Amino acid sequence: MDLKFKVIKKSNRNMSRLGEFETKWGVSKTPMFMPVGTLANVKTLTPEELRDAGSNVILSNTYHLWLRPGEDIVNEAGGLHSFMNYKTGPMLTDSGGFQVFSLAKKKDIKEEGVYFKSHIDGSNLFLSPEKSIEIQNKLGADIIMSFDECPPYPSTYEYMKNSIERTLRWAKRGKEVHSNPEQALFGIVQGGEFEDLRKESALRTVEIGFDGYSIGGAAVGETKEVQYKEVEYATKYLPEDKVRYLMGVGDPIDLIEGSLRGVDIFDCVAPTRIARHGNAYTRHGKINLRNQKYKRDFTPLESDCDCYTCKNFTKAYIRHLIISEETLGGRLLSIHNIRFLTKLMEDVRDNIEKDTLEEFRDSFYNNYYNK
Amino acid sequence: MDLKFKVIKKSNRNMSRLGEFETKWGVSKTPMFMPVGTLANVKTLTPEELRDAGSNVILSNTYHLWLRPGEDIVNEAGGLHSFMNYKTGPMLTDSGGFQVFSLAKKKDIKEEGVYFKSHIDGSNLFLSPEKSIEIQNKLGADIIMSFDECPPYPSTYEYMKNSIERTLRWAKRGKEVHSNPEQALFGIVQGGEFEDLRKESALRTVEIGFDGYSIGGAAVGETKEVQYKEVEYATKYLPEDKVRYLMGVGDPIDLIEGSLRGVDIFDCVAPTRIARHGNAYTRHGKINLRNQKYKRDFTPLESDCDCYTCKNFTKAYIRHLIISEETLGGRLLSIHNIRFLTKLMEDVRDNIEKDTLEEFRDSFYNNYYNK
Repeated sequence: MDLKFKVIKKSNRNMSRLGEFETKWGVSKTPMFMPVGTLANVKTLTPEELRDAGSNVILSNTYHLWLRPGEDIVNEAGGLHSFMNYKTGPMLTDSGGFQVFSLAKKKDIKEEGVYFKSHIDGSNLFLSPEKSIEIQNKLGADIIMSFDECPPYPSTYEYMKNSIERTLRWAKRGKEVHSNPEQALFGIVQGGEFEDLRKESALRTVEIGFDGYSIGGAAVGETKEVQYKEVEYATKYLPEDKVRYLMGVGDPIDLIEGSLRGVDIFDCVAPTRIARHGNAYTRHGKINLRNQKYKRDFTPLESDCDCYTCKNFTKAYIRHLIISEETLGGRLLSIHNIRFLTKLMEDVRDNIEKDTLEEFRDSFYNNYYNK
Repeated sequence: MDLKFKVIKKSNRNMSRLGEFETKWGVSKTPMFMPVGTLANVKTLTPEELRDAGSNVILSNTYHLWLRPGEDIVNEAGGLHSFMNYKTGPMLTDSGGFQVFSLAKKKDIKEEGVYFKSHIDGSNLFLSPEKSIEIQNKLGADIIMSFDECPPYPSTYEYMKNSIERTLRWAKRGKEVHSNPEQALFGIVQGGEFEDLRKESALRTVEIGFDGYSIGGAAVGETKEVQYKEVEYATKYLPEDKVRYLMGVGDPIDLIEGSLRGVDIFDCVAPTRIARHGNAYTRHGKINLRNQKYKRDFTPLESDCDCYTCKNFTKAYIRHLIISEETLGGRLLSIHNIRFLTKLMEDVRDNIEKDTLEEFRDSFYNNYYNK
């Protein structure tokens, strides 16, 4: 499916762009951040809470849903939107590639696909480009991903060169079997930190032709400097008129730096994961509510934040919940953290509009790191 | 504080009564069920969710709040309501007695109070009638409890006889130090399954004089028949014009049977605890969502239930969340289970109004147990 992506404004000073695309769920504005709903829910939260926290697209994981509850059950429920009752915006599924390479045990990568053992019960499993697309067709998200190899970081140039070739062959095979015209299929650019390989991967993925393009293998252990280069190496060679998605990147500063390099969509488990460990994003850096100093702090996480948590609860209360291992604590922090990132992306869009994203980046950076 | 309790309608056929009492949070209708917010939150839920599920009074535990975060912090926050942002209705705290007797390690019961070790870190603690009231004064709930001895079941007649005497002495001591005139203080009737001891305990607790009366030591291991007798033995001797609270009782059928015996308030952790284990109340009995048969059941828990969960999610989805250990599953079931009990109490009140509570009990019983 063509996402009817439109670039509304392009910066004259950098690669950032303001855009929008359309699905049956309405218009989605970019650059945007997607919360991750691993197992058909963004941990602890309801669809209404996600909507109220400003989320639009959410991502769910093919690998996890394939194992539990199984794509057939989601399909019989009428697809992911209907299964989890998410009506606020589009959904996206990844290919399962990243989870196979990071979670699964004893994997054996062959040309036909990857043989591995389930991280849940150790049973033998096989995922291939065709199988990944078939599962995603059944899950029924609006945007789906090609199955790619996710090489470890660091990998040698030789390994990476062979790997991008395989990912290109897999992308082609996936595209051939993609059978649901209502779903947009994205190709994935790999190539690690190697400029020529990122370029090669980008150009030849575009040659195959997809409804949008993802950048994989970023934020996998490399420094931020290297990460930003990797993004540039890819976006430079991607078409202006297609959505660009930087996979698995969600550190606040990375969302701004990625936007400056022409990325349209980001996702990351961080806002909900760090919440469960008692952390909150604030404009003055990440804080951990376990800290003694919040014991009697009867003020909200951020006094001018418009999220449900900040409008109703104090740091002292959230700290008490976290210390007492009450899941409401992680839930309240998840709401705030997601809102923090969706609000950050609203600011990013405003600043692209005014072409002041670099100044915004500098001022955000100063507040966030120089507490 | 006088609760200004009014009996609006009394059955001609049994001891049930329709009532209401008043606090600064408005009018509370009885008989009612209170969800339990052990650590200043009803596990996984927000105050708005409790309100929407029909809850009015909620209970929180003195013992737990004393240990975490400490009554001084709650007090500095402006009291429990303000600490947890609960504005829907009154709050009640128990005395800590039950937790000391059931949770604490190595307890030594003396006339002055109970010496024991914390269930969290094993540190030495001491709780007395005076200390319990002092903590509850600081927590600031609208209704507070006298510190009582909660004897194990079964206990000998001799033990129980001595125990009710101690509980009476403790009740007097607590009343003497109660210093917050905005809080209603309840006395607690004990006496186990012994009719004369329940009577003795009830009459002499009333003699001391409290703003309401609780019935303790029920549902602690005895059969339902014995439990219902224990309730009768107590309510018979309690004044008509004061609220009666049956502590820790929440099995659906027990709420009806208790109401038939003149109880006005009930509480229990069951609706949220069984939810976390994947169970839902339905009119046709308790069901466990882990059961295979719900794998493809794309209908709500109860088709005519008006709770958020039933209006938005299917059994198959909730089952998936429970099986995958996603806390949203327990959260959705908690909402349904609380609504199930608050709705049951609405039905109880309607049937007292029509004086058909016995027929309602029989029909509920048939549906619930003869699946």
